[in-house]
Amino acid sequence: MTSENLAKQIAFIKEIDKIKYIRRRTRLFNSDRNENDAEHSWHLAMMALVLSDYSDAEVDLLKVIKMVLIHDIVEIDAGDTFIYDPNKNHENTEEELKSAQRIFGLLPEKQAAEFIEIWTEFEEGVSEEAKFARAMDRLEPLLQNTSNDGGTWKEFGVRYQQVYDKKKIIQEGSKELWSYAEQLLEDSVKKGILEK
Amino acid sequence: MTSENLAKQIAFIKEIDKIKYIRRRTRLFNSDRNENDAEHSWHLAMMALVLSDYSDAEVDLLKVIKMVLIHDIVEIDAGDTFIYDPNKNHENTEEELKSAQRIFGLLPEKQAAEFIEIWTEFEEGVSEEAKFARAMDRLEPLLQNTSNDGGTWKEFGVRYQQVYDKKKIIQEGSKELWSYAEQLLEDSVKKGILEK
Repeated sequence: MTSENLAKQIAFIKEIDKIKYIRRRTRLFNSDRNENDAEHSWHLAMMALVLSDYSDAEVDLLKVIKMVLIHDIVEIDAGDTFIYDPNKNHENTEEELKSAQRIFGLLPEKQAAEFIEIWTEFEEGVSEEAKFARAMDRLEPLLQNTSNDGGTWKEFGVRYQQVYDKKKIIQEGSKELWSYAEQLLEDSVKKGILEK
Repeated sequence: MTSENLAKQIAFIKEIDKIKYIRRRTRLFNSDRNENDAEHSWHLAMMALVLSDYSDAEVDLLKVIKMVLIHDIVEIDAGDTFIYDPNKNHENTEEELKSAQRIFGLLPEKQAAEFIEIWTEFEEGVSEEAKFARAMDRLEPLLQNTSNDGGTWKEFGVRYQQVYDKKKIIQEGSKELWSYAEQLLEDSVKKGILEK
């Protein structure tokens, strides 16, 4: 039984390698190279480690980290959706759910169920852990775009209000990080890298 | 004080982006592209999540994950050392310690000390968490090389005994994963992708 479980777990570990090929729109800090989902997920986990004290609610840090590590695995089948894409809703599409079931379903049953649950909790954004994890997911590209002279905002003509509307869920996880983020957005307008 | 701390933490978060440019010798599964340190660290964290039940000792999983997430950050200054390089010792060089002090030193004092401690604990390999984290670090390239038709073993003419000697520390973290790894090595010899 164990070796059967291990075979499934190794198959999963090999399968998820594919997120290293999924390119996001945002680029690495001070760079022209697009970030991929594995790099992004690693960076969010590091941010959660470093910034967890700013969470307004007490959170289970291990759960937050699990969320950010696995949240984009569904993109192996479903692809990355640009957050400012007017034609496609980023939130919890059926395609993503099917992908979660297929990929996490490679794991032994109990573990598969646990991963699908954590991924769903992240997507729903209701628990304190999900709120903080989602704050990390919104904060990283903001830091990248401000470091990249406007980055995807400039590239795709995204304006202040659109960015503000997407970013404001940061405040559900951390008022302090949101006030920092708001300041960054104001500064970006002043610098001319984000249009009001 | 808080905003001073946050400025330091953001500086750290931006600095560690650089590990995305550090290429390892090993390549992605079924691929010719080299893996970078961020992708590698993400994959180890996922492996720790999925395989933690195989640890012989009870481990604090959050600590294991912290270890694998941060273990290669020192390579930003010190560079990646190929594990089979006969001219350079991979273990805890002075260069790496200096790098740890500079990079983790960007964080607020208490957090810097905590990160340096975790990194040191990983490097020493004595605690149960470090043993399991190091087992993950040895297992991933083994999986990659067996998926890549010999990968770096073939590319750099590395032979069975050298690989075996480097990999056997897996058994300090998990006898079961080591027995799986031993089998993989035997199979690799049979398949002709690793020379005895």
